[in-house]
Amino acid sequence: MPDSTPDIRELGKKVSNWGRWGPDDELGTTNLITPERVAAAAPLIRTGEVFDLGIPLDENGPQPGGYRINPVRLMSDTGQEQLFPGGFKYADDYVFMPLQAASQYDSLAHVHYDGFLYNGHPDSGLTVKGASRCGIDTQAKGIAGRGVLLDVARFRGIDWLEGGTAIGAEELTDVAAAQEVDVRPGDIVLIRTGWRKKFVTDNDAVEFTSSEPGLALECATWLRDRDVAVVGSDNFGIEVFPGENPDALMELHMVLIRDMGMTLAEMLDLEELAHACAADGRYEFFYAGPPLKFTRGVGSPINPLAIR
Amino acid sequence: MPDSTPDIRELGKKVSNWGRWGPDDELGTTNLITPERVAAAAPLIRTGEVFDLGIPLDENGPQPGGYRINPVRLMSDTGQEQLFPGGFKYADDYVFMPLQAASQYDSLAHVHYDGFLYNGHPDSGLTVKGASRCGIDTQAKGIAGRGVLLDVARFRGIDWLEGGTAIGAEELTDVAAAQEVDVRPGDIVLIRTGWRKKFVTDNDAVEFTSSEPGLALECATWLRDRDVAVVGSDNFGIEVFPGENPDALMELHMVLIRDMGMTLAEMLDLEELAHACAADGRYEFFYAGPPLKFTRGVGSPINPLAIR
Amino acid sequence: MPDSTPDIRELGKKVSNWGRWGPDDELGTTNLITPERVAAAAPLIRTGEVFDLGIPLDENGPQPGGYRINPVRLMSDTGQEQLFPGGFKYADDYVFMPLQAASQYDSLAHVHYDGFLYNGHPDSGLTVKGASRCGIDTQAKGIAGRGVLLDVARFRGIDWLEGGTAIGAEELTDVAAAQEVDVRPGDIVLIRTGWRKKFVTDNDAVEFTSSEPGLALECATWLRDRDVAVVGSDNFGIEVFPGENPDALMELHMVLIRDMGMTLAEMLDLEELAHACAADGRYEFFYAGPPLKFTRGVGSPINPLAIR
Amino acid sequence: MPDSTPDIRELGKKVSNWGRWGPDDELGTTNLITPERVAAAAPLIRTGEVFDLGIPLDENGPQPGGYRINPVRLMSDTGQEQLFPGGFKYADDYVFMPLQAASQYDSLAHVHYDGFLYNGHPDSGLTVKGASRCGIDTQAKGIAGRGVLLDVARFRGIDWLEGGTAIGAEELTDVAAAQEVDVRPGDIVLIRTGWRKKFVTDNDAVEFTSSEPGLALECATWLRDRDVAVVGSDNFGIEVFPGENPDALMELHMVLIRDMGMTLAEMLDLEELAHACAADGRYEFFYAGPPLKFTRGVGSPINPLAIR
Repeated sequence: MPDSTPDIRELGKKVSNWGRWGPDDELGTTNLITPERVAAAAPLIRTGEVFDLGIPLDENGPQPGGYRINPVRLMSDTGQEQLFPGGFKYADDYVFMPLQAASQYDSLAHVHYDGFLYNGHPDSGLTVKGASRCGIDTQAKGIAGRGVLLDVARFRGIDWLEGGTAIGAEELTDVAAAQEVDVRPGDIVLIRTGWRKKFVTDNDAVEFTSSEPGLALECATWLRDRDVAVVGSDNFGIEVFPGENPDALMELHMVLIRDMGMTLAEMLDLEELAHACAADGRYEFFYAGPPLKFTRGVGSPINPLAIR
Repeated sequence: MPDSTPDIRELGKKVSNWGRWGPDDELGTTNLITPERVAAAAPLIRTGEVFDLGIPLDENGPQPGGYRINPVRLMSDTGQEQLFPGGFKYADDYVFMPLQAASQYDSLAHVHYDGFLYNGHPDSGLTVKGASRCGIDTQAKGIAGRGVLLDVARFRGIDWLEGGTAIGAEELTDVAAAQEVDVRPGDIVLIRTGWRKKFVTDNDAVEFTSSEPGLALECATWLRDRDVAVVGSDNFGIEVFPGENPDALMELHMVLIRDMGMTLAEMLDLEELAHACAADGRYEFFYAGPPLKFTRGVGSPINPLAIR
Repeated sequence: MPDSTPDIRELGKKVSNWGRWGPDDELGTTNLITPERVAAAAPLIRTGEVFDLGIPLDENGPQPGGYRINPVRLMSDTGQEQLFPGGFKYADDYVFMPLQAASQYDSLAHVHYDGFLYNGHPDSGLTVKGASRCGIDTQAKGIAGRGVLLDVARFRGIDWLEGGTAIGAEELTDVAAAQEVDVRPGDIVLIRTGWRKKFVTDNDAVEFTSSEPGLALECATWLRDRDVAVVGSDNFGIEVFPGENPDALMELHMVLIRDMGMTLAEMLDLEELAHACAADGRYEFFYAGPPLKFTRGVGSPINPLAIR
Repeated sequence: MPDSTPDIRELGKKVSNWGRWGPDDELGTTNLITPERVAAAAPLIRTGEVFDLGIPLDENGPQPGGYRINPVRLMSDTGQEQLFPGGFKYADDYVFMPLQAASQYDSLAHVHYDGFLYNGHPDSGLTVKGASRCGIDTQAKGIAGRGVLLDVARFRGIDWLEGGTAIGAEELTDVAAAQEVDVRPGDIVLIRTGWRKKFVTDNDAVEFTSSEPGLALECATWLRDRDVAVVGSDNFGIEVFPGENPDALMELHMVLIRDMGMTLAEMLDLEELAHACAADGRYEFFYAGPPLKFTRGVGSPINPLAIR
């Protein structure tokens, strides 16, 4: 834990990627997932085992109600009453859901402050119609490449970190070292806190969303120094909550999304993958997690695959 | 084009996979995507170029209204009015959509006839609550592996095949031969008819869904003989429509989904991928197209990635 | 409180209206609101004061989540970005909601048992497509006529009855007598328990829906004897919950809806009306509470007007 | 038809009600429906016949798709699979719909221009969260009172006026005279053009929404002179479309809603009511059309009752 909390705007400037990929850029750190790096990640597929990191989309999800609800999926037909020639019968269904209800990407339009989104795009581009800049559809060709799991809960030897527990930069370094895995530019780094396991154990959506273990603010620098492309976790918001600064809210979101331009992958299920990584000591894999192409969308539900 | 249309129930029995993977199987032909085959497909990633095969999810999609509508995405907040401590502001959005509105998988629960789904699961398992068997969530660990594009429109030297044009089995063989690509067990085979290009050109949803070029019935046998795992296309329903048999509807759906147990990938955008394949003559790639994990869902919107 | 709980199927037969208005009837007790009775109720409008009995439709409603959620209303446009000729700007909005989320009618298709809906309509008419018989749209011409408030909470001299408190038939008679109002055939009778006031006071949706004060089973006979057309209340389900019979669920719903064919009006706000009635001692009024015409719908949100 | 189209901003000022009911007023002309006028309208209920003016809410409604869709109602349960103690079974349903999809009120937040809503409320009060002023919930206690039908189609002796046909002020006066009915302050005036009948005849949503017969601009003055409280019609937007001024859009909406502060009732079904009025020559009735109480909502679906 840091002795003192950095002023968030100072930290933002320090780790900023504004202008790095041109004044019009809307992709941010996924620019770091170059074709070369994607190709270099292919040999990480060895056994062909596939792990699905998305959580189920249904009424038992982690949303307690309020400004986000769990997905409501309803059948529009089952087919049994249909009388088409030849006997063909089909079933269809609809869903109503917040795009941020479960496993999902925060697009770079999800968070802004002081009037600007990532790369200086004015927040006036966010209207009732959606995100005219930095929407999730701009990330449509991603997100695939080298994935690395940092299993903090296992490193600590516990099932899960308690809510409000901050994970500092030094611990990330230590976990990587203990796992004998390096973090490289363009990586998709997944942090396992065990918070999903706690939700599956307790089945308490209010508990899951009221606090969480997660990254300390200083991790922004750690991620920036390594040019990580995407960070994901099994909690609802990557960062420790309540945060380190009692006078602010979701400061790591502010810095990662708006200043660094980093897409976040939240509410993943890393349990099965973590078991497999621990079993053979290999914490890298090929990650393939395409967002849906919601035009001007702020986020997208996902079910990323980790292929080993 | 075949001289005569086979009786669909005879054809269904001939190509059936019922019982092949045990009496409880709900996966069907995605069983053919073994870990070994996934691993063997990894070297298809060479340059690291990524192609996104999903179409945009918005109000301008291919649904003309009626039993399916285009996605309605609405903002629940933009953040501009928020006054959180520290200046954090966030945007969120919701979607209401048929899971079959755009690029999507038909799960094995999507089609049934004569009282049964794939593998003899009774259609009574399809209720107002969804698919108790063969739902799209059972395919959660997929679908990734070797992908092959068969570009029929290019083979014919045209922008698109007209609605109602059947693609026969012999033509599939000829296209593969002309492209110098083989189709192997466990492959995800994508058929390009150009029908998506026609939609983008004409922007006419009624036209897009009123007819389509697509596979002839006899292709069921062709796909079964080669143990193809998944078939996808740029039209709305894989098969030629209107179909060959005027006294029936969607017969290839009946056979592929219910008898063979094949997951279908519909309404893909294959244009950019097809250009790249034609440019270097390489029609195989790594396909990563995870469905969302809708519990008991009949289908899922997708944005599959083809990585070359 | 009754000494013993009647067998519900015996009670159902006793109060049944099956066949009373012909074998095809789908209206049930709203048949009792004859034009003559509507006309006779008009003079109840004296001062022209209007009371709105619907509760607000928003995210702070009485649904704690689960199988019913509170309404989600989202803007599709605000107009500010529009550039129509002449300067016209418009705003629009959408809603997603359970039709049973807030103040609402239970149609006669809402409850069934032993294979039948009201009047012997088979429950197979209830499919994924909705209610082929007894849907809320069959009540489209209603519901308007003489309304009577029975203010049980005031009669007891308390703000609200506690959850689980049963209101017996004798008490209904006593309340009417104390209020010097009679209950007549074709009346819309509104029972005030104060449960809405408790929700507004505590703002606890789990509490509101976990138990409630309400009518005892024996009130079915009381309502049938007086040929009441519609019964409404400020709780979520008219009847006391948990019910008198620990081996059953919502028994009064079973009898009122399926056997008597009575439309129920639930989750009303009777506070302001009750104040006015108490102030001048006049507990009758003109009630105008049209349902929306959802084709084959099971229920409808409402905002009934009581006009005095 | 007027010789020349008035400048809309001049007309707006002329008929303006800004400030008439105080600087904070959000109700506009429904202020004219005083309790005295409601009470005076009660004797219009003579035979007790009830006419439902709402159109069905289902997939066959008048929306052709695009920015508004028809309601999508889906079942969340039918009950058949339920196994509650005692045999209780229930059905429930959900709806997703634009609040402006079918018979509905335009609240005073629906239209604005030059930065202001009715009564000078700044349009900045319209945000992604809804209407902070002039929302439909402010009209919750209405709308009930004296209703008058002006049957223009019958006056002209035709089934319906063609799309684009303007109804002038003089014709309104003539229709009222022919029908021997007067229009009084606080009235809810319903204009029958026959456009709903055309929709029911042709079943063509594109036709229904592409043009319409309706009020000419000059009718704003006619309505203001008579202090009409609410105007309704069987077309989609009250006013003739395309409008009289080719350089503008929906000008009568601009003046009626934003300047006069008049709530509009659109897409009503006046057919049955018109028959009854013609049969006995009585064109006045008691109108009871409560909006649903959508907090900050822009509009509300309605099913108003006309009681004679």
